[in-house]
Formats: sequence, structure tokens, C-alpha cells
Amino acid sequence: MTTFLAACRSEKTSHTPVWIMRQAGRYLPEYRAVREKVDFLTLTKTPELAAEVTLQPIRRFAMDAAILFSDIMTPVEGMGVPIEFAPGPVIANPLREAAQVEALRVPDPEESVPFVLETVREVCGALPKDVPLIGFAGAPFTLFCYLVEGHGSKTFTIAKGFLFAEPDVSRLLLEKLADTMIAYLAAQAAAGAKALMLFDSWAGLLSPADYRRFVLPVVRRVMDGLRSTGVPLIYFPNQGAMLLEYVATLAVDVVGIDWRIPLSKARSILGNAAAVQGNLDPAALFAPPEELKNQIDTVLTHAGGQPGHIFNLGHGIERTTDPDAVALLVDYVHERTAR
Amino acid sequence: MTTFLAACRSEKTSHTPVWIMRQAGRYLPEYRAVREKVDFLTLTKTPELAAEVTLQPIRRFAMDAAILFSDIMTPVEGMGVPIEFAPGPVIANPLREAAQVEALRVPDPEESVPFVLETVREVCGALPKDVPLIGFAGAPFTLFCYLVEGHGSKTFTIAKGFLFAEPDVSRLLLEKLADTMIAYLAAQAAAGAKALMLFDSWAGLLSPADYRRFVLPVVRRVMDGLRSTGVPLIYFPNQGAMLLEYVATLAVDVVGIDWRIPLSKARSILGNAAAVQGNLDPAALFAPPEELKNQIDTVLTHAGGQPGHIFNLGHGIERTTDPDAVALLVDYVHERTAR
Repeated sequence: MTTFLAACRSEKTSHTPVWIMRQAGRYLPEYRAVREKVDFLTLTKTPELAAEVTLQPIRRFAMDAAILFSDIMTPVEGMGVPIEFAPGPVIANPLREAAQVEALRVPDPEESVPFVLETVREVCGALPKDVPLIGFAGAPFTLFCYLVEGHGSKTFTIAKGFLFAEPDVSRLLLEKLADTMIAYLAAQAAAGAKALMLFDSWAGLLSPADYRRFVLPVVRRVMDGLRSTGVPLIYFPNQGAMLLEYVATLAVDVVGIDWRIPLSKARSILGNAAAVQGNLDPAALFAPPEELKNQIDTVLTHAGGQPGHIFNLGHGIERTTDPDAVALLVDYVHERTAR
Repeated sequence: MTTFLAACRSEKTSHTPVWIMRQAGRYLPEYRAVREKVDFLTLTKTPELAAEVTLQPIRRFAMDAAILFSDIMTPVEGMGVPIEFAPGPVIANPLREAAQVEALRVPDPEESVPFVLETVREVCGALPKDVPLIGFAGAPFTLFCYLVEGHGSKTFTIAKGFLFAEPDVSRLLLEKLADTMIAYLAAQAAAGAKALMLFDSWAGLLSPADYRRFVLPVVRRVMDGLRSTGVPLIYFPNQGAMLLEYVATLAVDVVGIDWRIPLSKARSILGNAAAVQGNLDPAALFAPPEELKNQIDTVLTHAGGQPGHIFNLGHGIERTTDPDAVALLVDYVHERTAR
């Protein structure tokens, strides 16, 4: 088993594995070169190009895992919701009526997103044997936020207001999103993804009580629906420090942790049932090397070593990051944790 | 003493006092009517108009406190940094060099912002006797974020990168901001403000370790510098659930709490030394009345009653909020907590 997958299983490893959220992205000049030729949507829908950008950080850095290049909204279009990018997702007709939600399909991913599954197959054929591919999807509530609000937002007030005003329609939408993501992620695993990650970017917009009422049941539904794939399941409740006591009740292998809570506290809440993944502040990559190393040391100290830690940032890498800082990070984590 | 000020002192009160962050603002048609005539900057600099909008929510609702209408950037211009609004603050020459920071003045507020102090005096002359005025300022780190980044941001990556790369220049800037805010807030108290609140809107962007290193010392400096005013001091570390153990070491009377942490947990971390203020999710105001009341009940239950609780939202009110929902909130809190 590879280092990354062993760490996902909370098994001892020869070093702490590391990868970086959004490692395939705009901070890399080779990614920007691809994007000069095609727009974002075309990139996500063209297997050859999506595979290429997925592989770029693997060629450049000693990453322990690759993550599929795609967008969380990609599998939603097949439900019957046209989505544009400008550059964030824009839904011309946001979902705010029961009839709209009832009309949504739970599509077969082989029909709705064959290009994603082809990307997964191409990447898996090209990756070094010791670097597994992580498949991913957006979590139901995070997708709900975009679909109801109609676009990105700092607060997603419309989406949250809808959740409170129309709890039954909201639950139906969350469940349809859950079922769509189960099929989508299971298909990625069938196509070769060796781990599956669910990004709940907006989980932290809810109070713990509302998270427990509305979100936890559908995350549990997704995770239970994916257990039979046999691959490690990763859940990232962004800004979720106060949600971890509920996350601890989920059957997941790894919990992604943002930088707002020390990993030591996160582990004490989660117990030993799940490994933790994180949680360097992405802004640390703008620090001089010695300060960056100090901040990496702090993360490693709080993580308490192996088993049970996968190094990552606490959020996606910023597009203005110097790739050399990423190289330093990856090598330094490997060096410091080698046994 | 008024109900609000007694609650700030953690004394027993006849009901739980309530006010709302940004209660003087765009959700009120009478505020929008004023703004149709003048732009935002003119409004903040014209005492007669700033006093008028400060008083608007007091006329309409049974609020237990008024809060000065102003902007956190208003006292910064006098330090020597021109600021525009478009509509958020924009700094044409962001502070990123030691020489720029060294050149900053700590201005006398009577000279730099006489219009704010005149607004305070006008409001205090017009308020009912049982409704005190809260003066306020932005916290040093929150102002730092704008001054270094140059504009608003979700992540303030440039500002945080500067903090890590230039810790000494950053500390000097934070200290000059602290000293400017001490003079600014003390002048508001001298002009009649009966409580002072420091808004640390971006405190939650930092890891607990970085908050402790960079932010806590300057917040302590501000609070220590204001102790001699004799008025209650309120500190709001937005998204600060994981920072409260450090906030507990500050000599403040009230800690504002956002909705991401139940007040029961916040109180258990803060102890009895400080009252708590909060923390209804602003999105709850978009719920039907029964659901809104349920969410208010949840906040009141977690708060555990008097002494030591001031009811508020966990963040500023959204501009699309129905004023009738605010009326319901204020009256319901009073009714439920009357003894």
C-alpha cells in the first residue's frame, strides 16, 4: 500500500504523506499555460487536458497523492441545472421552489460526466505506482449553497434563509445532491480513484445546531453510501472547529482540518477513529523559509506524528503562491518526518 | 444604571438587553432615504446626518443601546493614509514598506475626526435616558488587514503574508493602530459614549498560535489604554471560537461571540469575568416567525440567562433583512427574559 493510503487507514508510515488542496491550479506556470489555450469549463470537460493538469504537480513535487482536476459543480449539471462560470459558478435560475427541486434527476455519471471518468482513467494510467489518485466531490450543503443562492457569496444568506424557511424542500434537495454525489464518487472509484474526498467548503457557515440538523444526516448518507467502494473516505468540513464533535460520529477514515484549530485539539475531539489531514495556513507559504519551516514544525508538533496524520494546507493554495515554497514544504515535511 | 450597562458589568437586570450589530444601516428604508441624498463618506463625516441614522433604529425598535454610525476606517485617514470607498475601503498605496509605517502619525482625534465626536455629542443629547450610546473602533489587526492588503478580501493573503514576512514592521503598524484607536475611543467616551466596542472582524483569519503572537498583545494594549475611561469595554473577535482561551486573559467587560460557537461553550471558556454578547445567526431573521423564535430560544438557553448576557446577532445584520423581523426579535427577547 502507498504511504498516503496507509496513512488514510491510520497505519504507521515511513514518513508523513503530503499533498496540497488545489495543488493542480493557477499558482503553477504550466497550469496557466494550459489555461491560456482553453477556458476553465473546457479544461474540466477535456480528459486529455484535465489529466495533464492533474499530473503537473506530481511531476514538479514529491507529492504523496494526486487529486483529480475538476470542479465541484461539474456533476450538478446532469441533475438538470445549467451552470455557467463567470469565473465562479452562476446559476441563472436558482432553486427556490419545491417544483424545481422535485424535477431534479439523480443522473448516471457514465452518461452525465463520462469525461470525468475518462480523466480518472487517464490519470491512473499515467501516475507513478506509489502516487494514488484522490477523487472528489462537493458536499451536499456546499452545492446547496450555490444552487439556492445562485452564485458565490461570503455569507450565503439567501441559501441559509431558504434552509430555515423551507426545511422540507431543503432536505429533499440535500438528499438528491447526496445521492448524486454517491453515484459520482462511486464511479470515480470504479474508474481507478484510490480515495474519495468530500469538500464541505461552507459547512462552517452554519451554527453547530443547524449543522447537526441539516448537514450531518446527508454527509452520513454519502459516507454510508460509499462504504462499499472499499476506498478511504475523506471529509473536509471547512471552518468546522465547532462541528468536529458531530463529525466524530461519521464513519470516515480521514477528516480534513482547516488552520483555525490546532490538530492536537482536533484529534482530541475526533478520537483515534479517523486520521486528520491538514492544516498549515496557506498564507504561511508567503513567509521566508525559516518562518515557513517554523510554522510547518508547529503543525507537525500538534499533529503528534504517525499514525493518523496527512500533511496538507488548511485550505486551498493561493494562486499567487511561489511554487518554490511548495517544493520547500513538501521536502521539509518528508525530511522532518522520515523514520 | 441602564439595563445595557448593568449587563455589561455582569449585574442582574430586569430583562436581557438587546441591540444589533449594524442596526443603523441599509436594511432600514429610512436609512436608504438618507443615503439617496448623500454618499457613504459624506454621511460618516456629517454629524447631523450620522446622528440621524444612529437614532433611526432607536425610534423604530425597543433597542437597549444605540451604536455610533461610522466606519472603522474613518480614524485611519488622520494617520496619513488616504482612503476611498468603492464601496468597500480602498487604499491606493497599501502599506508594505517600513518607511510607510514609520511615517504614520498617531493623530489627536479632536483634530482628525472632530465630526465623529460632534456626532457622539449630538446623539447623546437626543437619546432617551435609558438608551446609552456605544462608541466603537476597528481592532488593530482588522485595520492592518485593509491597510496592507489595500482592499477587502476573503482571505487577506497579502496582509497575512506581510505579517509573517515582516513581523517587526507589522508589530510597529499594529502598535500605531492600537495607540490611534486608544485616543479615538477615549475621545468618544469623553464626548459621551457610555461603552466602547472594538471590532476584530478578521481575527478569525489567523490560527490560534498566530493570533496569540501578533494580535493578542495589541488588543491588550488597547484595552489597558482604555481602562481609565471607566466605561465598559466590549471586544468582538469575529469567528474567534478557537481564540477564546486567549481572549479570556484580556481585561474586557464583554466579549462578542459569533454564531459558530454556542454561548454555553463560550461562557465555559471565558469564565465569569466577562459577559457575552450574541449570537443569533443573521440568517435566522429570514426564517418564518416560529422558526426565528425557536432559534432565539436556543440562543437564550445556551446563554443561561442573566447575569452576563447581552442579546445580539452573531454578525452584522444583512441589508436584505425585513425590519419587521427585527421588531419581532427585540420584543420576543424582552418578553422571554422579563422577570
